[in-house]
Amino acid sequence: MGLAEPIRFLFHYGSIDFIDNRLNKEKDWPKFKETTPYGQVPLLEFDGKVINQSRAICRFLASKVDLDGKNDMENLEIDSVVDTIYDLRLKIREVFHEMNQEVKNEKRKVLHSTHIPFYISLLDKLAAENNGHLALNRLTWADLFFAAVKIYFSHCAEYDVLQNAPNLIKVVENVEKIENIKKWIEKRPKTSF
Amino acid sequence: MGLAEPIRFLFHYGSIDFIDNRLNKEKDWPKFKETTPYGQVPLLEFDGKVINQSRAICRFLASKVDLDGKNDMENLEIDSVVDTIYDLRLKIREVFHEMNQEVKNEKRKVLHSTHIPFYISLLDKLAAENNGHLALNRLTWADLFFAAVKIYFSHCAEYDVLQNAPNLIKVVENVEKIENIKKWIEKRPKTSF
Repeated sequence: MGLAEPIRFLFHYGSIDFIDNRLNKEKDWPKFKETTPYGQVPLLEFDGKVINQSRAICRFLASKVDLDGKNDMENLEIDSVVDTIYDLRLKIREVFHEMNQEVKNEKRKVLHSTHIPFYISLLDKLAAENNGHLALNRLTWADLFFAAVKIYFSHCAEYDVLQNAPNLIKVVENVEKIENIKKWIEKRPKTSF
Repeated sequence: MGLAEPIRFLFHYGSIDFIDNRLNKEKDWPKFKETTPYGQVPLLEFDGKVINQSRAICRFLASKVDLDGKNDMENLEIDSVVDTIYDLRLKIREVFHEMNQEVKNEKRKVLHSTHIPFYISLLDKLAAENNGHLALNRLTWADLFFAAVKIYFSHCAEYDVLQNAPNLIKVVENVEKIENIKKWIEKRPKTSF
């Protein structure tokens, strides 16, 4: 449920058939990595093209399922929020992947005392202003993106990052109550994050 | 010439008037930071809205000056390349901002031996396939983005990252020979990067 999950949310939201090709980290990934254009997943294979970068893929699918903006200005607002969510992801990820235990402890302190509260309170404020959404006062792919990655956030940060964010909880609830998303969450493979 | 420079390139390319509000890092920034929505620059102020995130801003401007894709699939290709350029930027930035000198030296080794050659050779291959452009066989905002940030790359990496990338050099040349960009480069403030 890392960066592929928002893509899966969008497919399910729009009832678009797709093959959810999952890789076993130890068994499949090392070999598969060599066949990828940038050594990264998720990848989208579409019309014979193989494309990387999760946000680019989400933006593409969002326009197919009408969760994008109605004009450039609306898309700018959505894109800006999504990149900000991604900035928080990078902060959390940096600590999670730090190998030196001493450095990790130091970085975790700053993450918990500064970065997470900073981003979460700003995003929560946005969610309040937009009535339970992250942009444009309505459901957009920014909401699906956030609802799909928040488990990864809490897993890697080692606590529930939404504990003091009632409006962000509302964003997630608004996404998870969508019938197609609800069904997907019930049946999706139970992985640790 | 960090993340604001691609935005300036797009404004100049499209002959759009704008106020280039620059901040002195020591004098202006600490105070101004508190007034920003996310503690970050660059910001675009447009139609009374203040928006952060450089790539979102560039994507918005690109559609105004016809340097975006003609359809969703074309935009997906551009977005994917730009995010990949940005991934390289993050790798370079991480080393540049590392404060612990020992850790910095270790990280720099990996950056120079692995990350930079990996990304630059992939981007150079793309540039070869697209005849001196990064996507779609024609000039798009991905080219302007790369040409605008490559000085930052070389400055922070402490060597010319394009030294073995003839096709990427061509991408830059194709951008820098555009009359409006050429004029801007000649007259822009001379900062260290």
